[in-house]
Amino acid sequence: MSRFLSARHNALAAYTPGEQPADMQYIKLNTNESPYPPSPAVLAALQNDELKRLNLYPNPDGTALLKKIAEAYKVRQENVIIGNGSDELLAFAFLAFFDGGVVFPDITYGFYPVYGNLYNLPFTEISVNDELAVNVSDYIGIGKNVVLANPNAPTGIALELCDIEAIAENNPNHIVLIDEAYVDFGADSVVELTKKYDNLLVLHTFSKSRSMAGARLAYAIASKPIIDDMQKMKYSFNPYNVNRLTQTLGLAALSDACYYEKKQREIAETRDYTAVRLSNLGFEMTNSKANFLFARSPRIGGEELYLKLKQKGILIRHFNKPRIADYVRITIGTKEQMESLITAVTEVLQKP
Amino acid sequence: MSRFLSARHNALAAYTPGEQPADMQYIKLNTNESPYPPSPAVLAALQNDELKRLNLYPNPDGTALLKKIAEAYKVRQENVIIGNGSDELLAFAFLAFFDGGVVFPDITYGFYPVYGNLYNLPFTEISVNDELAVNVSDYIGIGKNVVLANPNAPTGIALELCDIEAIAENNPNHIVLIDEAYVDFGADSVVELTKKYDNLLVLHTFSKSRSMAGARLAYAIASKPIIDDMQKMKYSFNPYNVNRLTQTLGLAALSDACYYEKKQREIAETRDYTAVRLSNLGFEMTNSKANFLFARSPRIGGEELYLKLKQKGILIRHFNKPRIADYVRITIGTKEQMESLITAVTEVLQKP
Repeated sequence: MSRFLSARHNALAAYTPGEQPADMQYIKLNTNESPYPPSPAVLAALQNDELKRLNLYPNPDGTALLKKIAEAYKVRQENVIIGNGSDELLAFAFLAFFDGGVVFPDITYGFYPVYGNLYNLPFTEISVNDELAVNVSDYIGIGKNVVLANPNAPTGIALELCDIEAIAENNPNHIVLIDEAYVDFGADSVVELTKKYDNLLVLHTFSKSRSMAGARLAYAIASKPIIDDMQKMKYSFNPYNVNRLTQTLGLAALSDACYYEKKQREIAETRDYTAVRLSNLGFEMTNSKANFLFARSPRIGGEELYLKLKQKGILIRHFNKPRIADYVRITIGTKEQMESLITAVTEVLQKP
Repeated sequence: MSRFLSARHNALAAYTPGEQPADMQYIKLNTNESPYPPSPAVLAALQNDELKRLNLYPNPDGTALLKKIAEAYKVRQENVIIGNGSDELLAFAFLAFFDGGVVFPDITYGFYPVYGNLYNLPFTEISVNDELAVNVSDYIGIGKNVVLANPNAPTGIALELCDIEAIAENNPNHIVLIDEAYVDFGADSVVELTKKYDNLLVLHTFSKSRSMAGARLAYAIASKPIIDDMQKMKYSFNPYNVNRLTQTLGLAALSDACYYEKKQREIAETRDYTAVRLSNLGFEMTNSKANFLFARSPRIGGEELYLKLKQKGILIRHFNKPRIADYVRITIGTKEQMESLITAVTEVLQKP
């Protein structure tokens, strides 16, 4: 810390991304990336002419992308904004809307409290229940801004559409932000409901189900006034936030929905297969609808399992946090990677 | 504006980027882009294997880039941070350091007051003198955080190194941020002085002198504690802020310094040539060391000239702002583009 840092940041604890150790090649099941490359359309999208135009700023709105996203989700262009990954769009939303306070579950994406602290916003973490699920009734009529990941992370548990609708309907004077980073692996999206509820703000990312974590692209869908406010944040922070190449790649990805739907189904099938295998090994799991499993074994602690698998060349994620310290989060890789995981877990359990 | 926007943003006026009209092909001299494509090394840098890895998050620190930048500027890796363009790094600096207030010239990059307003920071705009130059003595011993663009925008006027040193030396308990976006076209960089002054924070971008505005890449150099604080902002906002492809392209660009030095010299020569031609047409100009000219004619107003040139297919920038409303800012393009500009300006002046 420098002696110049503004005092309000003294206690700020930044987010910790998943590790990327370089000491050896790992099977990487720790950051919820897709194990598959982007679609062939994406791989073919960057022509040399496009690279030669890199001297020019990108279109700040990403107009072509907005149009394509609007078509895909049957909304209007004015209902969409693009960002440099969902983290940036989350940061804009917290800065724009949550001065009056915001609530989210105590077990959820670890970045939400970081934004709360970064902007010195009052926030409350509402306990999930003993099954680590969000109690919908806690949020109905709460009269505060709400952030929910659906499916939630790191549990993967999904809410029903009608439950989210009830929260939005009974909280009309506050934003209900639904972070749908993992929605394509088996949950239902509330995008359609943004036409009915002007307080509903939905975030999607290309990082998980579209195999583009490395390109940084996300978008938000909401009523026009909310999107206008998000635009105001973007244009007051970094108008050219999505680079030219990523815009081109994003367009190509949207043109090949079929490829991604197949991969999403494949990942969901591998998830369910892996869950059965882990269950046979005595693991308990939440009912994940995401591209990861959240699992604990009565025979080994979460941290120990994480460390032993790392020694064996497999990275998973452990959160050293009350209530979930027994658990590990395992990203769903290819079928082969998950077989390697099961083999390694079996070995670890045999030699405790 | 939505009814959910936090009240403190009610009066926020976002930044207005240079226009990108799509009604026809323009000679684009309005956003200080380089007229040249990136170096051949950059065009060749994106192999298919790299695209296939887009499913994986980028290295959040951009370690390979940090190493290369540190080598190029003879600093240590711990003295460097990368960002999604300088705008993002400026946003981090304002958020991190300027709660206690900040000063900058009244005529400078228009984004500085936007950041001040976005974060509700107290800021003061100090008048430049009648020649539109920064009065160095205004900043010596001011006892406040300072932001200076060097060369300044939109005037292009450069400060002497010893003057910046005096400001940093006599303001030891506050940040002196030097935005060197245009430094490669003829001014001197203060990077070396960051070793002597722990309050000096320097920003560089790949957008101007490295022909990569479309890729979004910038970096800051400063003492380790300042960089640590900038990292804390980044990791509390968007850790994966620079995508994989841009990191790869940035590395390639740094490996081909020779190409860019030639182009920078070429642009400086074209600037000086264009200045003579405009001078012959009766224009007055500031002494620009950047890749643009800031010019006014006694025979035509700034806005009128901008509009008439736009009709002729040439985009330049006019700022509707007190003190500089007579001026236009003209980005330096290729020699041919500047000949077209001179021809068009001559025609406009002949038919007022």
